[in-house]
Amino acid sequence: AVYDLVEPLHPADIADLLELVDSEEREQLASAITDLMTSEVVAELNDHVREVMMEALEPEAVATIAEQLETDDAVQLLEDLDEDDQKAIIAELEPETQAAVESALAYPEETAGRLMSRHVMAVPEHLTVGDLIDFLRENGDLEHDFHEVFVIDAAHHPVGTCALNWILTTPRSVKLTDVMKRDQTLIPVTMDQEEVALMFQKYALISAAVVDDSGRLVGQMTVDDIVHIISEEAGEDALLLSGAGDGDINEPIKEAYSSRVRWLIANLGTAVVASAIIAFFGAAIEKLVALAVLMPIVASIGGNAGTQTMAVAVRAIATNQLTRSNTRRILWKELRVALLNGGTVAVLIGIAAALLFSPMMGVVIAAAMIINIAVAGLAGVLVPLVFERLNQDPAVASSVFVTMITDSMGFFAFLGLAVASGLTG
Amino acid sequence: AVYDLVEPLHPADIADLLELVDSEEREQLASAITDLMTSEVVAELNDHVREVMMEALEPEAVATIAEQLETDDAVQLLEDLDEDDQKAIIAELEPETQAAVESALAYPEETAGRLMSRHVMAVPEHLTVGDLIDFLRENGDLEHDFHEVFVIDAAHHPVGTCALNWILTTPRSVKLTDVMKRDQTLIPVTMDQEEVALMFQKYALISAAVVDDSGRLVGQMTVDDIVHIISEEAGEDALLLSGAGDGDINEPIKEAYSSRVRWLIANLGTAVVASAIIAFFGAAIEKLVALAVLMPIVASIGGNAGTQTMAVAVRAIATNQLTRSNTRRILWKELRVALLNGGTVAVLIGIAAALLFSPMMGVVIAAAMIINIAVAGLAGVLVPLVFERLNQDPAVASSVFVTMITDSMGFFAFLGLAVASGLTG
Ligand SMILES: [Mg+2]
Ligand SMILES: [Mg+2]
Ligand SMILES: [Mg+2]
Ligand SMILES: [Mg+2]
Ligand SMILES: [Mg+2]
Ligand SMILES: [Mg+2]
Ligand SMILES: [Mg+2]
Ligand SMILES: [Mg+2]
Ligand SMILES: [Mg+2]
Ligand SMILES: [Mg+2]
Ligand SMILES: [Mg+2]
Ligand SMILES: [Mg+2]
Ligand SMILES: [Mg+2]
Repeated sequence: AVYDLVEPLHPADIADLLELVDSEEREQLASAITDLMTSEVVAELNDHVREVMMEALEPEAVATIAEQLETDDAVQLLEDLDEDDQKAIIAELEPETQAAVESALAYPEETAGRLMSRHVMAVPEHLTVGDLIDFLRENGDLEHDFHEVFVIDAAHHPVGTCALNWILTTPRSVKLTDVMKRDQTLIPVTMDQEEVALMFQKYALISAAVVDDSGRLVGQMTVDDIVHIISEEAGEDALLLSGAGDGDINEPIKEAYSSRVRWLIANLGTAVVASAIIAFFGAAIEKLVALAVLMPIVASIGGNAGTQTMAVAVRAIATNQLTRSNTRRILWKELRVALLNGGTVAVLIGIAAALLFSPMMGVVIAAAMIINIAVAGLAGVLVPLVFERLNQDPAVASSVFVTMITDSMGFFAFLGLAVASGLTG
Repeated sequence: AVYDLVEPLHPADIADLLELVDSEEREQLASAITDLMTSEVVAELNDHVREVMMEALEPEAVATIAEQLETDDAVQLLEDLDEDDQKAIIAELEPETQAAVESALAYPEETAGRLMSRHVMAVPEHLTVGDLIDFLRENGDLEHDFHEVFVIDAAHHPVGTCALNWILTTPRSVKLTDVMKRDQTLIPVTMDQEEVALMFQKYALISAAVVDDSGRLVGQMTVDDIVHIISEEAGEDALLLSGAGDGDINEPIKEAYSSRVRWLIANLGTAVVASAIIAFFGAAIEKLVALAVLMPIVASIGGNAGTQTMAVAVRAIATNQLTRSNTRRILWKELRVALLNGGTVAVLIGIAAALLFSPMMGVVIAAAMIINIAVAGLAGVLVPLVFERLNQDPAVASSVFVTMITDSMGFFAFLGLAVASGLTG
């Protein structure tokens, strides 16, 4: 019965179904639909879910699945497994697949060399449109889709590219070199996936040639894979900024715990710094408990203002929009926004504190708020930029530092001004 | 001199250049390279930058630019302008463009009808591959790229689709209906861009037919536009979660202020709620200042734990991975992760507080920490889900509520347990 319900579904939908249920039901479902569990379904599975399912299988079984996949998908399936499992599976592959997989795994994770497809439609430059069509009719297999034909010279260097619609709309007698675009976007094997994705976006590419160090055509990247990379890269920044690692909803408990607890412990450290500042002003709080009541407001709003600016800065860095050339302008802009925000919030909380406590309390909290939000605005841009200059991912660690700065500054400015203004007698 | 430097650049790179400089330099640069300021450059500009530049031009000038763009790009250019400017510009367009733009603007923002391209390659079902190629050679223009040919019936309903590589690898005599794939992904005009993007991702599409209410083919969406949508949708959640609106680094100061200050004021409200809880325990703090020193730690770590879970939940909702069918399982999983995290952090802070203050203080802060992190884990999943069920974007408002819950619960659990345990005498 289950089988009949699942049978008409697209592999991507079957994969979604497997992700939705828990791990026990997943095993039951998988064994109820064994012959629908094609390699396409496996390729579509969430990384975490796939890893668990593959680890439950024998190396030969995984090898059989990998054999049926395109090389890039086979590599994706293998790269996350333990090294031992990986070796055992690779040993079971046919020599040809084995060579392709090993050559891909030799490139670092998330580079074009690791991710590219090794199937390209490459033809020599002397062909005419007619020659090309005849060649494709004889040799083309319908198994591998391609979106453009790369024209290469004798040394296997790409010299131009033909979109398929140009070929279809051009008379047979025209030479390929007269249809092709010479000005192409070539991707070095070592380029990071994030850069590749930005190039696809920027130049509206459907596919692009990947070249090795000597400029020879070795593969291609296609937009259907880029779409996943963009979604992953843009989505992961929201998670990283929040300290959830690169986790998703299918991440096993143990992994979720170990990636999140690290961040919580780091934040415990920064919270202790802020506490030390409060402890320093202990005598003042003892005299005036109102300070303890109001101080978290200054810290908290500063933290929010810092987080806002930081999110904008991290996104801008990720999309190459914040560079050395406009840093000063952006800092100055963010400072002005911060002063406007700080001014507005300061007036609101200042009036409330003046009415509920004392006029001087209103002045003190308003001044502390403006200071903290201004500092938050600057820290929100500078902290991610410093990480970027140090070649660290600004999305990973910026939050801890921005929060530490705004919490500490919030308590320090408020309690310090309260003492200086004579509020505590 | 500037002209010669800019001349060899791709329109997308010229657009990037204009984004990097400030608004004064931008005007100077634009007038130094007037004839390089093609419509392609305008189409590639950041929304905020383009809006400012278009507002500085006369309606006729904007209309001339819009006239040279593909309809979907012209619509994108016009949709963000003030209604008056928009009308003035539309009035200047050629009748054909005018009709196309008005029909697009009649659909809601961010739907397929608004975003689709009206140029499609559609052919009747009786053709052979050879007929199609002859037709394309005679009628195809090289101006509009296309990635597939849609086969339609007499009523203009799509019945199948042919990837161009299938056409190129098939003999002339074969009928289109024998090459085409009948099982296509059709996009209703009213579908939201986020759903469209998820379909492109899921089914690895390069382009897809858009159909109206009666199933007639009215346009297509292509993956180069989808790539921007995915990047925008995934990236905006990081910004929304941080309370930065849908701002980017080019957002004008006034807009950045108005979208961010709203959020800060909302957070001021929630901070005041937390303050009221502290005020309620004022007498206890007066007796034992250590409470004021330690309480922000409990609130802050709870806030971080809540944010982690919330980021994962929001991402899962955005990608259709968190649904009614797995809510219970995910809640239970997040609770277990929260208890592990809470336990770890509680031990660390508990020992430190026991040594620095008193053993009972250690017990109290450890217990409060576990309670707050557990509540944070549940709130991190439930708050976004509630917004989702209420048809609100969970990325927009979840943070305010999760923070309010973790701040209030942090202060309440810690101060309440301190009083109940007799710590304050
Ligand atoms: Mg899926
Ligand atoms: Mg992976
Ligand atoms: Mg990356
Ligand atoms: Mg692929
Ligand atoms: Mg990244
Ligand atoms: Mg990854
Ligand atoms: Mg906080
Ligand atoms: Mg750009
Ligand atoms: Mg827009
Ligand atoms: Mg949307
Ligand atoms: Mg377009
Ligand atoms: Mg969204
Ligand atoms: Mg938008």
